[in-house]
Amino acid sequence: MKQYLKVNEWSIIEDSFDPNNQELSESIFSIGNGHIGQRANFEEAFSGQTLPGSYMAGVYYPDKTRVGWWKNGYPEYFAKVLNMANWIGIDIKIDGETLDLARCKVDQFYRELNMKEGYLLRRFTATLDSGKQIQVEAQRFTSLARPEVAAIMYAVTPVNFAGVITFTPFLNGDVMNRDSNHGEQFWDEVEKYHDGHGHLAGLVMKTKKLDFYVCSTMTFEVFQGDLNKGALTATANQVTHDKFVGQSVDVKANKDERVTLYKYITNVTSRDHAVADLIQVGRRRADEARSAKFETLLSEQKQAWAKKWEESDIIIQGDPAAQQGIRFNIFQLNQTYTGADERLNIGPKGFTGEKYGGSTYWDTEAYCLPFYLSTADPKIARNLLIYRYRHLEKAKENARKLGFKEGALYPMVTMNGEECHNEWEITFEEIHRNGAIAHAIYDYVNYTGDVDYLGEYGFEVLAEISRFWSERTNLSTLKNKYVILGVTGPNEYENNVNNNWYTNRIASWTMEYTLQVLTDLRQRDPKRLQELLDRLQLTDEETNNWQHIIQNMYYPTDKSRGVFLQQDGYLDKEIIPVKDLPAQELPLNQHWSWDRILRSCYIKQADVLQGLFFLGNQYDLETKKRNFDFYEPLTVHESSLSPCVHSILACELSYQDKAYDMYLRTSRLDLDNYNNDTEDGCHITSMAGTWMSVVYGFGGLRVKEGRLHLQPLLPKEWQSLSFKVVYRGALIHVHVSKDGVTVHNETETPVSISVSGENFDLGAHEKRTARTV
Amino acid sequence: MKQYLKVNEWSIIEDSFDPNNQELSESIFSIGNGHIGQRANFEEAFSGQTLPGSYMAGVYYPDKTRVGWWKNGYPEYFAKVLNMANWIGIDIKIDGETLDLARCKVDQFYRELNMKEGYLLRRFTATLDSGKQIQVEAQRFTSLARPEVAAIMYAVTPVNFAGVITFTPFLNGDVMNRDSNHGEQFWDEVEKYHDGHGHLAGLVMKTKKLDFYVCSTMTFEVFQGDLNKGALTATANQVTHDKFVGQSVDVKANKDERVTLYKYITNVTSRDHAVADLIQVGRRRADEARSAKFETLLSEQKQAWAKKWEESDIIIQGDPAAQQGIRFNIFQLNQTYTGADERLNIGPKGFTGEKYGGSTYWDTEAYCLPFYLSTADPKIARNLLIYRYRHLEKAKENARKLGFKEGALYPMVTMNGEECHNEWEITFEEIHRNGAIAHAIYDYVNYTGDVDYLGEYGFEVLAEISRFWSERTNLSTLKNKYVILGVTGPNEYENNVNNNWYTNRIASWTMEYTLQVLTDLRQRDPKRLQELLDRLQLTDEETNNWQHIIQNMYYPTDKSRGVFLQQDGYLDKEIIPVKDLPAQELPLNQHWSWDRILRSCYIKQADVLQGLFFLGNQYDLETKKRNFDFYEPLTVHESSLSPCVHSILACELSYQDKAYDMYLRTSRLDLDNYNNDTEDGCHITSMAGTWMSVVYGFGGLRVKEGRLHLQPLLPKEWQSLSFKVVYRGALIHVHVSKDGVTVHNETETPVSISVSGENFDLGAHEKRTARTV
Repeated sequence: MKQYLKVNEWSIIEDSFDPNNQELSESIFSIGNGHIGQRANFEEAFSGQTLPGSYMAGVYYPDKTRVGWWKNGYPEYFAKVLNMANWIGIDIKIDGETLDLARCKVDQFYRELNMKEGYLLRRFTATLDSGKQIQVEAQRFTSLARPEVAAIMYAVTPVNFAGVITFTPFLNGDVMNRDSNHGEQFWDEVEKYHDGHGHLAGLVMKTKKLDFYVCSTMTFEVFQGDLNKGALTATANQVTHDKFVGQSVDVKANKDERVTLYKYITNVTSRDHAVADLIQVGRRRADEARSAKFETLLSEQKQAWAKKWEESDIIIQGDPAAQQGIRFNIFQLNQTYTGADERLNIGPKGFTGEKYGGSTYWDTEAYCLPFYLSTADPKIARNLLIYRYRHLEKAKENARKLGFKEGALYPMVTMNGEECHNEWEITFEEIHRNGAIAHAIYDYVNYTGDVDYLGEYGFEVLAEISRFWSERTNLSTLKNKYVILGVTGPNEYENNVNNNWYTNRIASWTMEYTLQVLTDLRQRDPKRLQELLDRLQLTDEETNNWQHIIQNMYYPTDKSRGVFLQQDGYLDKEIIPVKDLPAQELPLNQHWSWDRILRSCYIKQADVLQGLFFLGNQYDLETKKRNFDFYEPLTVHESSLSPCVHSILACELSYQDKAYDMYLRTSRLDLDNYNNDTEDGCHITSMAGTWMSVVYGFGGLRVKEGRLHLQPLLPKEWQSLSFKVVYRGALIHVHVSKDGVTVHNETETPVSISVSGENFDLGAHEKRTARTV
Repeated sequence: MKQYLKVNEWSIIEDSFDPNNQELSESIFSIGNGHIGQRANFEEAFSGQTLPGSYMAGVYYPDKTRVGWWKNGYPEYFAKVLNMANWIGIDIKIDGETLDLARCKVDQFYRELNMKEGYLLRRFTATLDSGKQIQVEAQRFTSLARPEVAAIMYAVTPVNFAGVITFTPFLNGDVMNRDSNHGEQFWDEVEKYHDGHGHLAGLVMKTKKLDFYVCSTMTFEVFQGDLNKGALTATANQVTHDKFVGQSVDVKANKDERVTLYKYITNVTSRDHAVADLIQVGRRRADEARSAKFETLLSEQKQAWAKKWEESDIIIQGDPAAQQGIRFNIFQLNQTYTGADERLNIGPKGFTGEKYGGSTYWDTEAYCLPFYLSTADPKIARNLLIYRYRHLEKAKENARKLGFKEGALYPMVTMNGEECHNEWEITFEEIHRNGAIAHAIYDYVNYTGDVDYLGEYGFEVLAEISRFWSERTNLSTLKNKYVILGVTGPNEYENNVNNNWYTNRIASWTMEYTLQVLTDLRQRDPKRLQELLDRLQLTDEETNNWQHIIQNMYYPTDKSRGVFLQQDGYLDKEIIPVKDLPAQELPLNQHWSWDRILRSCYIKQADVLQGLFFLGNQYDLETKKRNFDFYEPLTVHESSLSPCVHSILACELSYQDKAYDMYLRTSRLDLDNYNNDTEDGCHITSMAGTWMSVVYGFGGLRVKEGRLHLQPLLPKEWQSLSFKVVYRGALIHVHVSKDGVTVHNETETPVSISVSGENFDLGAHEKRTARTV
């Protein structure tokens, strides 16, 4: 845990420069717009420790998979998010001396991620070896309004001298991934061009595999002193070498005279444009951006972010650290995925690092979907579902590859529908992911009421997943029950267990829900149902078999404690609460051998409790309480996805302090570098879990039978909590304070609502205060 | 399965040349002498598919370990057997045209591994592109009598022309391992020298890590026509380049005139000599070999092998394929390990390939020890035990690394006592290896009666292993029994199971035996015991705890079937006999995903049955029968170590046909390439299992309370079976035929013996025939 950032409700602020924090700050101060993401690397040269990261959504690399010991069924490749051409670069020389913060004295350093307006700002004073001192101000953003555009303002002011400042804005495709086998590079240069007079240059790079083309274009203007004097017009000098194009401009600056460079960049890809058009499109967009000017683009940016905040802000009064935490999470989520492109999804690190390869995990369905459901147009959540629908054939192939005759097994990790992870205990065994994908369909339909989705897309996915489950179970003649052997549950600190309760339950639930959808479709749209049954060749015999499995599924339980057992044999372990472990042995994954972890009773992340959260409407409070009381003390929360679920359940059980503890653990995970790994990138998907812990947890939001339920619980540390949710065409503003709960319908659409057990309809623009929480 | 070799009782013979079989033959026709091993690569150039392999015992390379996903506790390196300098090489040119069997027409090809006399012979006629035809005869061996010496005879006869034959014998250190990450080479050249007049050259190479030095020295003589005319004396031309030294000699040969080159090679290492002395020692040994002459060295070799066969031959009459199989196994075992160097051990592939890195596995204790116990001086088996004693500190470190406070966990795979394998399910979980190491001590003492070993070495190892077991168990409050969670048993088609019967049993047995040894020592040598207890700080409290665990160990069982259960939950699986699987799906490891294998009931190698074999004296025949009848039909024998155990138990149960089937499967595994992988090297350690299946199986040999028991069962396919065993100073010749069992004591030492239940003492040189089998 490392706390060096200032608490501020709207910004992340670093007010001194410590090179040891640079990679960590690079993650935290990342900017992005769903199309492109950029770590907070410096524009100018930096010879200190840094993880360069410029990432473009949907552009990946099928790298040779690193495998210690091959197992049949492993994928051939591991997809990697690609560090693409450095487009932020602006080399600075002062009378020939390179500016490099690792090699000069830095004072008055200030870095701010302004979340309200969506930009990154940096100011500092640097004293070079020569004794020359400059002030620098740099500001940049990736435009939400124009996804292919980014802009940088970079101003240098000589403090104690007059001299020549050389600016060399550049595009550099000679980049590496840190996560590369043996230093291999992933990009080839295709073309570059340069127009010194026009202050314009472009670079087209192509990935060595899969042929993704990315054209980066830059154009720039330099102003000396007063901006109103107009841009300098001197022809820039070309600086090119392999995979690199730059232009340099010398400016003779007086003491205290600010010289400002505006760099306008576009990054366009063959995912969106014909390869032949890339240069032209890039150039046009760049020209448009330059014509619009930095201030106009920035103003568009502020407006776009204002709209995002209007939809998704959460206000916590009385607890600035908690306020900053939740806003940071919402900000990063909105930077990562906008829903504009249905081919995209949400990687665990978003665009803030290479780890997890930018691929899609079950995180999307299990943790991210609710955020987008409640804060954005429903079609965005729908797109996340359709993403999996489009991968159905690949998921069927994946099941075939593992030897299943029927059904679909979605991959654990994927970029294009194919599995690209190779740990047998995860790849082959963490099959519960299939359940989360089914549950997300339920979640979406339950929230939005969009039952048409089921006939259109949902049923096919559900049916193929149910088929997988039915083949993956087997009848234990010993138990005379259906069992699921050899799985890894959500708790990855157990591998290859039998009858993981969560997996058995979510498998059975999938089949139940599929049959329910089938029955509903038979009522609502028999013609479409018949089409589907024909296409799927789904027979009564098969659905009867599902019914039989549902009725005879085995669930491990401990009757004496009245709890569900995480898996067979769990009670053979030594059961010692986490609090009794020596503090210096935590986190376990940094101190214990894998062998010891596996044999221990300690739970990495919610497992039985994950099921009680997902299927919360099927279990009474007493059951939840018994299981929470049993499992919470044994859970080490060494997955970022764990505390949010415990926080939500703790709210439901009115365990205020536990809920608040768990909330802090999730909401400031990256800002306080809780897991000591944020330098690799931010934990983007768990940020959606943080959002849930506020809205589902402290807000107590649920949707039951078409009614929006709220059951708020205000932590004693907070004066009030406000959030907005989009619900079936309405925008509901919820305000929770010690005095009560106010719900305000900010739209024309009436909604059925329940607040703290009181049911009512909330009409257009109606505001109502319910009884005290 | 591939059968292209001729059946012959004393030789392996290939009588035509198929380049597709070359790598397979290279493995099978390997020669070695415990000090050095050499695949049957050709002396002359060969541009076809080949796996060059020259290996020196004890010289290894700690290569960077290949890991997909790191787990805490993994070792830093993987030890590899090193392909060292090619010392067999003799380049042949005919009027400048290179001889290369991949590029010429080959007739009358004949390759023989003469097991009786210990040499490799090859003859062929080659027609070159030019139409020139030559006859070649090549013979070589690695000397048993002079372990650092090897010799090659290479004769060329022009068939249809007269011309210049250029011989270039060489030493080439520019070699690779196939099993190398990214083509890295492992050797650096240190020094080379050359004496053209003396027909002598040397090359000193050093490994890039660990600084093993190997000096290869060659000297040679060339004879034209009649050998009596004396060697040619022309000065040889030097041919050197990086890591390579050779000498070439041109001989103008007449048609039909045989030109013969004798190459004498020594390979000496810094393991045995001071680095500064290597060149001198190598040169002296090479000079001595040349002075002795090839025929003398070959005659020494025949004598040395005659002695080996005298001790260890098995004669099977009436079944030449079975005869050839067992002799091949005995031959390879004797080539691999002679016991001369207690620092050495037995790698699963011996010196016949790179696979398994030449490292030591539990194979040594579980499968190899009995062979050496019964066919060689007891100090050889003792050396194998002392090897582990010397690694005790490393085994304790290994346990500490995994978080154990006490005790020793021997590595799964090792070259120097450190673990060098990195699959968690094997490295961390296949802990039953500790039990095999303890059991080997019992086995040795039981067979030899050398109780002094226990006080000297054995007890410390046993105590530290028992300590590990006691910490590795935990009390299940649910079962009120001690359990062992998260293990992989001998059957590697199950991972991370709870309460593997074999592991629980061997753990408990180790503690029982350790306590028994402690009690015996207290009687026999209380002073030594006190020294040991003090050194180990072993208290009554600790041994009482072992006692408590022994008495309360949990053993999974199926009471209804009366069988031990391989592990908890085994009966939840679908139980379908192997014979009901589609034949095309076997072997499973080539057709099924790992996921499917893990969940299936199929057993890779003897697991419960391994325990019933090891601890055979503790279980009655009925128990063995019930377990055999249950597990044999579910066993796929996809480990080479499996059929021998089943064969032995089948003999005990008088299942003649099953025993014979299993015997064939093990004894001709490599000759018939049963597992389709012998090109990687021969299955050396399973060859000792084959030996056991004859002597322990069909011979029914056991030692009980100091008496040698024989309970022969002659397969109906055999007329007779004869073997010899060394037992407590006596050499007993056992002959089993349809008429009865004859035992002949070929020594002065009387022995207590039991044949088919009849007990008697067999005096000096006494021969006795027992009742019909």
